Amino acid sequence: MKQLPCYFGRRFGRTAIVAGLACALVGGSLFVSSDLTHADEGMWLFNQPPRKLLQERYGFEVTDAWLTHLQKASIRFNSGGSGSFVSAEGLVMTNHHVGADALQKLSTAEKDLLKDGFHAADRAAELKCVDLELNVLVSIEDVTGKINGAVKGEMSPAEAQQARRGAINSLEKESLDATGLRSDVVTLYQGGLYHLYRYKKYTDVRLVFAPEQSVAFFGGDPDNFEYPRFDLDVSFFRAYEDDKPAKPEHYLRWSEAGAADGELTFVSGHPGRTSRLNTTNHLKFHRDVAFPYTLDMLRRREVLLRTYGERSLENARRAKDELFGYQNSRKARLGGLGGLQDPTIMWGKQVAERKLREAVAADAELKAKYGDAWEKVDASIGAYRKIFVRHGLLERGTALDSHLFTIARTLVRQTEESAKPNAERLREYGEAGRESLEQELFSTAPIYADMETVKLADSLGSLMEQLGGDDELVIQILAGKSPAERAAELVARSKLASVEVRKRLAEGGKAEIDASEDPMIDLAKLVDRPARALRKQFEEEVEEPLRQAYGKISQARFAAAGTDIYPDATFTLRLAFGPVRGYEEAGKKLPPWTTIGGAFEHSIAHERKDPFELPERWWKAREKVKADTPFNFVSTADIIGGNSGSPVVNKNGEVVGLIFDGNLASLVLDFVYTDERARATSVDSRAIIESLRSVYDTGDLVRELTGK
Amino acid sequence: MKQLPCYFGRRFGRTAIVAGLACALVGGSLFVSSDLTHADEGMWLFNQPPRKLLQERYGFEVTDAWLTHLQKASIRFNSGGSGSFVSAEGLVMTNHHVGADALQKLSTAEKDLLKDGFHAADRAAELKCVDLELNVLVSIEDVTGKINGAVKGEMSPAEAQQARRGAINSLEKESLDATGLRSDVVTLYQGGLYHLYRYKKYTDVRLVFAPEQSVAFFGGDPDNFEYPRFDLDVSFFRAYEDDKPAKPEHYLRWSEAGAADGELTFVSGHPGRTSRLNTTNHLKFHRDVAFPYTLDMLRRREVLLRTYGERSLENARRAKDELFGYQNSRKARLGGLGGLQDPTIMWGKQVAERKLREAVAADAELKAKYGDAWEKVDASIGAYRKIFVRHGLLERGTALDSHLFTIARTLVRQTEESAKPNAERLREYGEAGRESLEQELFSTAPIYADMETVKLADSLGSLMEQLGGDDELVIQILAGKSPAERAAELVARSKLASVEVRKRLAEGGKAEIDASEDPMIDLAKLVDRPARALRKQFEEEVEEPLRQAYGKISQARFAAAGTDIYPDATFTLRLAFGPVRGYEEAGKKLPPWTTIGGAFEHSIAHERKDPFELPERWWKAREKVKADTPFNFVSTADIIGGNSGSPVVNKNGEVVGLIFDGNLASLVLDFVYTDERARATSVDSRAIIESLRSVYDTGDLVRELTGK
Repeated sequence: MKQLPCYFGRRFGRTAIVAGLACALVGGSLFVSSDLTHADEGMWLFNQPPRKLLQERYGFEVTDAWLTHLQKASIRFNSGGSGSFVSAEGLVMTNHHVGADALQKLSTAEKDLLKDGFHAADRAAELKCVDLELNVLVSIEDVTGKINGAVKGEMSPAEAQQARRGAINSLEKESLDATGLRSDVVTLYQGGLYHLYRYKKYTDVRLVFAPEQSVAFFGGDPDNFEYPRFDLDVSFFRAYEDDKPAKPEHYLRWSEAGAADGELTFVSGHPGRTSRLNTTNHLKFHRDVAFPYTLDMLRRREVLLRTYGERSLENARRAKDELFGYQNSRKARLGGLGGLQDPTIMWGKQVAERKLREAVAADAELKAKYGDAWEKVDASIGAYRKIFVRHGLLERGTALDSHLFTIARTLVRQTEESAKPNAERLREYGEAGRESLEQELFSTAPIYADMETVKLADSLGSLMEQLGGDDELVIQILAGKSPAERAAELVARSKLASVEVRKRLAEGGKAEIDASEDPMIDLAKLVDRPARALRKQFEEEVEEPLRQAYGKISQARFAAAGTDIYPDATFTLRLAFGPVRGYEEAGKKLPPWTTIGGAFEHSIAHERKDPFELPERWWKAREKVKADTPFNFVSTADIIGGNSGSPVVNKNGEVVGLIFDGNLASLVLDFVYTDERARATSVDSRAIIESLRSVYDTGDLVRELTGK
Repeated sequence: MKQLPCYFGRRFGRTAIVAGLACALVGGSLFVSSDLTHADEGMWLFNQPPRKLLQERYGFEVTDAWLTHLQKASIRFNSGGSGSFVSAEGLVMTNHHVGADALQKLSTAEKDLLKDGFHAADRAAELKCVDLELNVLVSIEDVTGKINGAVKGEMSPAEAQQARRGAINSLEKESLDATGLRSDVVTLYQGGLYHLYRYKKYTDVRLVFAPEQSVAFFGGDPDNFEYPRFDLDVSFFRAYEDDKPAKPEHYLRWSEAGAADGELTFVSGHPGRTSRLNTTNHLKFHRDVAFPYTLDMLRRREVLLRTYGERSLENARRAKDELFGYQNSRKARLGGLGGLQDPTIMWGKQVAERKLREAVAADAELKAKYGDAWEKVDASIGAYRKIFVRHGLLERGTALDSHLFTIARTLVRQTEESAKPNAERLREYGEAGRESLEQELFSTAPIYADMETVKLADSLGSLMEQLGGDDELVIQILAGKSPAERAAELVARSKLASVEVRKRLAEGGKAEIDASEDPMIDLAKLVDRPARALRKQFEEEVEEPLRQAYGKISQARFAAAGTDIYPDATFTLRLAFGPVRGYEEAGKKLPPWTTIGGAFEHSIAHERKDPFELPERWWKAREKVKADTPFNFVSTADIIGGNSGSPVVNKNGEVVGLIFDGNLASLVLDFVYTDERARATSVDSRAIIESLRSVYDTGDLVRELTGK
């Protein structure tokens, strides 16, 4: 799909905003009902794996050792996506499009790594990324009791929300202090369980190899989320510790044989978000409000960056990765909306919901405990509708689409939050996350004033359009100027492009922030009060009541259908599985894999025009490269955005592929699993080796991966 | 800008829909106030020319003969745009982008006239256009008395609206019967005057010459509405009568000398729509509602057609002209919105409005007659807000973006309207317009099923998004299917792509329509009742009250500031004027014209990448063509969308240029004239001759134009 996550939170810049848009959707929770369950369904917790299912269906026994090995070889990218260790020397494999954020930040007008690719001649030539952080899940601890113990039954939603946040912030801080590991409390089943995830963190990450984007993303937007497919969507990084290659405890071995048609495979990665247990009214809110709104914004940004990029080749280079993000999200969301607009899918949801509600209504105890949950969801959605646009614009920040503004806001908020006891802070400013936050805040990634101005002008324009030109806050933000003039002035006068200035402001605390005359800091101060008010309203009137209501619905489901189910995706590590398998579309049988030779034919069929033009290097190697090498394959594994870069392994835990996409039919997996036509798409391990060997002549990498 | 009009009405397909979107804006009327008037301002009526102004400012005497000659050599294109006769043999000059609709309809997968250009070796090789109609304004008659006589003071808005429509339909029919000329009643000053325009009509129009689109639209979307500019945006057609070249009574002679820096020039063309007298609240409605909505729809269609086009080269060819239309409108509307969002412009409007209202309030008689007009405008806008989205989707047809649906609706409505007395029909189905309507209804322009399906699916999706999936009409329209499935079924099963089928249905009348099982006809029937209801509501609660209110405001203005003012644009023939003059931007002096040599340099600066790649033919001719030939020039003339293709003439009425664009600063001319930086952009007559001679080797055309 580019299986990028619907991820936001402690992030600046592109991903945060892309995600902010892509995720202007509430809630989600556990999967619906057993009568909708399909065989290869599920994004399973590593501490609650589908042992029975895999045994019964595939005769495969999941051992603890097998699980631990796979878990600890798996990696999460803070730029959004998944990866894995693939050598004893800390070599990390992910998708090219997951690594693209790092590639973009390392590129300049003179050296375009996205376009031209990269291969480090030796360790010394590996390029250090500016703000990439990798996380490896080390342990999971159930802290449900501790969190729930802090929340008392008589509390109002607002009090409950604060008590829970306090408990979470404190637990994370205690864990960090005790273990030195990044510690995140993860809410599962929408509040049914709370698990504390501890991660080993790598912040010195260096680029080893990336192919040209024209083969990594061959077929471009037209082929994105389509199949057959021919993409070498891979890149390699290396994790360092103490300036030496990391020696990971676990790494995945390579399968040169790849996977056979019908062979069972596993995916270990970080699906971002699913909404499979949403009530039908909640889904209708997605269908009629959230998705259409998000799509309008995505199209707007796509057109903006495309037109900016078309003005010059250098502009195109600057905008490339961000533009891709919007196009990718647009196509993904459009597919998701297509599912919501499909009456057969909605009908299935309605039937399942009615059954569950009838089961609850028929049992006096269940009815008393959970009977009001659906109306509570409706009420929360109603409350959200009222603030949806304003909350998105001001608190999620879509009205202020500027790197510099995001920095300013973080500085302003960090100063304010740091003065509070840890337990009372906004979640993303808790002590436990401080290092990761600063990794991004002080990033040396380039900020282009012209692109900043274009983006800020357009987003200020959208603010004025959506709140109206006579809105008091809009008038204050624009300060008597047009959006274009105001944006130009803000960007030209702000000094926040300088990392030194940021550091001085961060270190100077309140006094320094108060004294600052930086116009972006002023703007962040101006916007902060109303934005915080909206956040508070959202948390108290939408998020917390939804969590409570979905908690009840989940309990009702456990009571009615058992507990052997997986929680909705949360951008944390999950295990999915399914065989390699082709499918039928419009009466045509599609094979389980494509070949490298097919890539050349596909290019020729499009007269070798962009985005169907392979790199010159590939045409030169055409005679040498084995044409029948499997290139991309499809399997039935249950994945979603965020799984990009996930390793695909066989029963022996060896790499047979690399998830990078899903087909169009898979875009409904946000809401419902189906294995009829929905497929996960991977780069075949054989194509990776064959191209490294025959096209890129990178014997060192091949040896490191295969030992040969 | 491509100065395409904001034009809709009796049209099918592209232009109607583009215009339907671009024009989802109410009202407009006469220009505001003398204290805002600038020297070269005005889109003047040919029967009310600015004689005094031109005499005083430029010492130029406008004679009746000069005016008549220019008027009768001027042409309106029904595909949207302007043109002129430029030879005694019926040769017609317009922009390439105005001719593009005809070029697209004549193109096939094998023969792409847009891409490759065209030159007829001789008369026999000239290609007949499939549905192009040209209009030449022959006479203007003031019928204000007759129209107003039909409307009695005691009538309700609904009665007034019907009475006025009846009078208009009848007058047009009488005039057609009496003269055989196309006869249109034009509402000027929003109802202050009614003029009957009689046009000589040419429906046999043949393509003579078009350059490659890559030089006609050199610089593409990035350079559109920008200056400096280097476009050979010209094409030539020939009008035929009785299968022989037409012998127009008037045609424009050619100036090989072109216009000097500072020389006064005139523009005779068809500006589409301006809104310069809108009240500030009305402008705020544009700013906060109509423009943002329209822009979202334009971006949506742009992304849709671009992604459709990117799938194959043939798709790209099919979508090209329509995609251009959306991009052009997007950039134009974005510029217009920028003006509305500029507080200095809005402030100027507010000051002028306050002055006028104070003058009215200070005079008891004026106050009694006109004092309530502003509140009436507010009330009408309030009524419009309530139906704005639904009216646009269902009556303007943006929810059913399909050529086949437009045909079906026309057939259904024509049948129903034809059964009524002429005076009671919807305006576009009056007898006077029948021929032009059928020229389009029975057009043999290609309809591509795949593109139809993609467009209809997306627009049905947008319908569901905007009205909500639970809306009863939406449910009926979708008939239990998803938008994508429903669109596929409708397009696959409809037979309306066949002109024979259309003719049979049109000729068969009600019986045939009632009996039809064509699913598009069924859909048109389903949508027609609610759509008509919305139209009625719009006409009675918005259009008519607005007309009455703006009529009062206009009268108040006449009383306060005199009557020597021009009406807002109405896509009818107007005279504008202004000298050739460069300007300053961001501290940089921009010259009054560019040169042909500059085009090559501009291409090289962009590494000759699309859209900055000139045709191969140009590179081959580079040594031969005179590099210092003026290519495009700018002048201060007051033009707007619809002026595309207008001839620019000198005091002798000789062609010195061809309007094709305005700069970014000109995009606010919808609302306010300024000559500080706003400029009209033209192809220089010298560049046309030089390229015809040295690049295209078309001696025949050069001789026909220059006599040499």
